[in-house]
Amino acid sequence: MQRGSLVDWIAVDWGTSRLRAWAMSDGKVHAQAESDDGMRGLTRDRFEPTLLSLVEPWLTAQSTPVVACGMVGARQGWVEAPYQTVPIKPLSATPVPVPQGDPRLAAYVIAGLKQTTPPDVMRGEETQIAGFLALNPNWDGVICLPGTHTKWAQVSAGEVVSFQTCMTGELFALLSTQSVLSHSIAQKGWDAGKFEDGLADALSRPERLATRLFSVRSRDLLEAAPKEGARAYLSGLLIGAELAATRAYWLGQNLAVIGSREVTEHYAQALSLQGAPAVIADADRMTLAGLIEAYRSLKETV
Amino acid sequence: MQRGSLVDWIAVDWGTSRLRAWAMSDGKVHAQAESDDGMRGLTRDRFEPTLLSLVEPWLTAQSTPVVACGMVGARQGWVEAPYQTVPIKPLSATPVPVPQGDPRLAAYVIAGLKQTTPPDVMRGEETQIAGFLALNPNWDGVICLPGTHTKWAQVSAGEVVSFQTCMTGELFALLSTQSVLSHSIAQKGWDAGKFEDGLADALSRPERLATRLFSVRSRDLLEAAPKEGARAYLSGLLIGAELAATRAYWLGQNLAVIGSREVTEHYAQALSLQGAPAVIADADRMTLAGLIEAYRSLKETV
Repeated sequence: MQRGSLVDWIAVDWGTSRLRAWAMSDGKVHAQAESDDGMRGLTRDRFEPTLLSLVEPWLTAQSTPVVACGMVGARQGWVEAPYQTVPIKPLSATPVPVPQGDPRLAAYVIAGLKQTTPPDVMRGEETQIAGFLALNPNWDGVICLPGTHTKWAQVSAGEVVSFQTCMTGELFALLSTQSVLSHSIAQKGWDAGKFEDGLADALSRPERLATRLFSVRSRDLLEAAPKEGARAYLSGLLIGAELAATRAYWLGQNLAVIGSREVTEHYAQALSLQGAPAVIADADRMTLAGLIEAYRSLKETV
Repeated sequence: MQRGSLVDWIAVDWGTSRLRAWAMSDGKVHAQAESDDGMRGLTRDRFEPTLLSLVEPWLTAQSTPVVACGMVGARQGWVEAPYQTVPIKPLSATPVPVPQGDPRLAAYVIAGLKQTTPPDVMRGEETQIAGFLALNPNWDGVICLPGTHTKWAQVSAGEVVSFQTCMTGELFALLSTQSVLSHSIAQKGWDAGKFEDGLADALSRPERLATRLFSVRSRDLLEAAPKEGARAYLSGLLIGAELAATRAYWLGQNLAVIGSREVTEHYAQALSLQGAPAVIADADRMTLAGLIEAYRSLKETV
């Protein structure tokens, strides 16, 4: 690519722990870049230089539009993009402009969604949902977006009607690396049978979760249970507990799972074992599709 | 106290994070000492000097018996004291002698208990249970020992018949200090009403635990919920989940709760709200009573 010659705008996914950027040209990805400079730990004055260090090769003397989604719009982010209240079409608010800084950037941040009763929030997933709906027009059903904080969103007529959050990914990370169970759990590896055991234990007696967790440690001490299996069992327990908690959301619904490959397969398998098949969509692809939607509507309104 | 003049033996409670010692004389506590030198992080050759640095003022040229309970008897401890299998009277195995080191010490470590089906283990709590039974002869029922890993033990005719472990204390610590919820939770403070709300939410719909946790964060972001209340609510949620998981243990049983003052009161209150009153006993006092029992039987057998 010639320096800056072809870039119409820049799509940015800026989460808690990761920053990704795509140089967009004629509606297609011309180049991409990423770093570990998530918004966590960045003070407000560090966002612009951090982004510049990643995308500077794509810029020209003219102002290049930047559309960003994710935690970058939080109160502690680059600019606060106030939550929109469900039920609402995702991306229906105009992205919030970042106060002028470097003249080569004209940056906008997408608003997250909030729910009043029961209280809940999302930032970033609304863009993936909008991308999924752009690629699957007229799709109604429930979308599961597994991650550090898994979101379950009920979608109808293009709107997010309601949603809820489970801390499954964060719980798994804490338990498998910070708790006493960490001594009994491999940091990688898998055992599909143990994953299904965990799912079954959690789903058959979800109220017993509190007593199941320590069994991972006891089975290691008393039975030298393999640590890859323990990893899969813990994941099964926690995803099973999540499915038990969200049963009213997914039972009998049209289902989609949006996420990274590995975790998406685990959720889809877990749902399938409950007789609830789900379509799978790649999170990065949905994010980009959503950012393209946001840029399109921004061009119409700005 | 004159240097070493009156000490018959030394009682030691050596857990993961704390070391406590009592100088015993004529069946009474003559002096006590404690440090943060828990067994975690100590290599095997560091146990003796660590204990000596705490109890040296109590020693004479003659050998002083030491009886220790807790994680000090784990595989990575001072000496491994193999688990005894339930059903069994706690302390029915002779404490395991530590190989001779400093001639001023003659140390013994109490064995923990294990259960084969479902697999579970305890180290330290068996001594508290023995102490409780020594002080309450012929007591039958269920003993709850809240802590980092809460134990529930079914006791009958002086034996521990079965038991189970919940990671409630460790989960609370991880969630309130390491997770995203930490931003919304005070590190101290309490709200009795919010504690009861958490209990009720967990006990009425225990299968929904996975979706309740994140509400602590959402309520802070959307409603500026007070952080002391969030602390009490999370505690209520997790203790409620534990009571839901252990209902078959405590329902309709004679109940005792052994622990430190604050946590014991929370558990007793939670049980009481479920119509299950419990007697309360102080953990340190039960530990010491159990160590005295162990020393008594050791004198008879050695």
